[in-house]
Amino acid sequence: MNALSHFSINQMTVKQLSLPSLVEACVNLAVPAVGLWREPVAEYGLEAAAKLVRDAGLTVTSLCRGGFLTALEPDARTLALADNRAAIDEAATLGTDTLVLVSGGLPPGSRDLVAARERIADALSELAPYAGERGVRLAIEPLHPMFASDRCVVSTLAQALDLAERFPTDQVGVVVDTYHIWWDDTAPAAVARAGGSGRIHSFQLADWVTPLPAGVLNGRGQLGDGAVDLRAWRELVEAAGWTGFIEVELFNDGLWARDGVGVLEETAGRYLDCVFR
Amino acid sequence: MNALSHFSINQMTVKQLSLPSLVEACVNLAVPAVGLWREPVAEYGLEAAAKLVRDAGLTVTSLCRGGFLTALEPDARTLALADNRAAIDEAATLGTDTLVLVSGGLPPGSRDLVAARERIADALSELAPYAGERGVRLAIEPLHPMFASDRCVVSTLAQALDLAERFPTDQVGVVVDTYHIWWDDTAPAAVARAGGSGRIHSFQLADWVTPLPAGVLNGRGQLGDGAVDLRAWRELVEAAGWTGFIEVELFNDGLWARDGVGVLEETAGRYLDCVFR
Repeated sequence: MNALSHFSINQMTVKQLSLPSLVEACVNLAVPAVGLWREPVAEYGLEAAAKLVRDAGLTVTSLCRGGFLTALEPDARTLALADNRAAIDEAATLGTDTLVLVSGGLPPGSRDLVAARERIADALSELAPYAGERGVRLAIEPLHPMFASDRCVVSTLAQALDLAERFPTDQVGVVVDTYHIWWDDTAPAAVARAGGSGRIHSFQLADWVTPLPAGVLNGRGQLGDGAVDLRAWRELVEAAGWTGFIEVELFNDGLWARDGVGVLEETAGRYLDCVFR
Repeated sequence: MNALSHFSINQMTVKQLSLPSLVEACVNLAVPAVGLWREPVAEYGLEAAAKLVRDAGLTVTSLCRGGFLTALEPDARTLALADNRAAIDEAATLGTDTLVLVSGGLPPGSRDLVAARERIADALSELAPYAGERGVRLAIEPLHPMFASDRCVVSTLAQALDLAERFPTDQVGVVVDTYHIWWDDTAPAAVARAGGSGRIHSFQLADWVTPLPAGVLNGRGQLGDGAVDLRAWRELVEAAGWTGFIEVELFNDGLWARDGVGVLEETAGRYLDCVFR
């Protein structure tokens, strides 16, 4: 078995690579799968991107991202729903079964987390059947609590599951991303709960490093550089029944400043050393 | 009743003020209580500081801070325990019944959160009786999960309570600080649990504002500037039985750059507007 047989590289990790360069590098390095982002896919052309990855034999493990479903104003909400339907369509065209959702933060001036979470559920009730009809699963990604106000009011895996479990398993599930949940002593139980009901729709890795940069968005650590016991998390998620790809998604200014193929090679190596073996 | 009768200003909020200036400003503004920090107290002189606040009639609501109890090496652990005993003594001298503990992060190279938390419990078993004999309560402060690796492996109020409840109530309790727990949907239940067993030893406020600055330490928002429903948290903590002071502790480069008395006045005003009324 190819040691990288379950490795997937998220496009954002090496965003300095054009889509054709990314695909070529994956083929050359025997990386079998990619996670894609809507913006660079749209830039290249959706149909062309779908053909490019298909012809290269790559699996598309996820599309990032839908979500941002917490708006209060009816017009903003209508726009968000339309955008999410478009994202679902794009996922189907790309041949991936998973659309990652970043649920959205508090609307300006609001301090009501409970109501924001409930608006996400309302939106999912409209989007989930639409996704299901197209063979796409919506994967709610809990984001680290440091993003609770401005990006995602869903901060723990248990919260994500509370939302997902209101819908059919093949329509709504969760993302398990070590960067966001590594600190949480209740997350292992939530992983087991998610796996037991088939709700793990994506498994992503990044390491936790400090100091965090200003804005805290682009400080995700290369595998092995930080505080996360990545091997233990892999074992935990696999013990919960996960047999799918393991996607590495790093937002890191330092990595983006380097040669993208070199970063991909390093990341695959770290995956083997810190996660897989 | 003086509207500020339960207001306490943490020294760090206006760290640009010398201790005598802080005390004078509190007296002038009818602020009845302060939370102190060890370093500026030591700089002024422990006994002199104790006399200064006592003579001014101020209540010392807490001393910050003990903790950092996660070291692996025996020598480092011995040092930490000695330092915490000194902090307990200082708290007693200052006439406060509460020493705030920031428990400590992962030691260099370690990825074992569970073991680090257990070392905190081990240390508490040595420190708690010492504190109890001196009339000082150790207050475990859960820090926001963004500090889990480098400052505090205790990230939720529930975790803090799990630790505290191993010890007598009058020896070990918790800090409820809105900045650290506002995002957590399990925190309200933990507040009730803490209050029901008399484990709330300190109630602190700060608001959550973004973007976070590099290093994320000094980005705490002035009351009312951010995402936290401060009034709701006050009501929640009071519903759990809290009748003590409410301490405002802001680490904020912008506030520190301003006139300290003005910041104290503004903070008292915000407390009245955003928390109390």
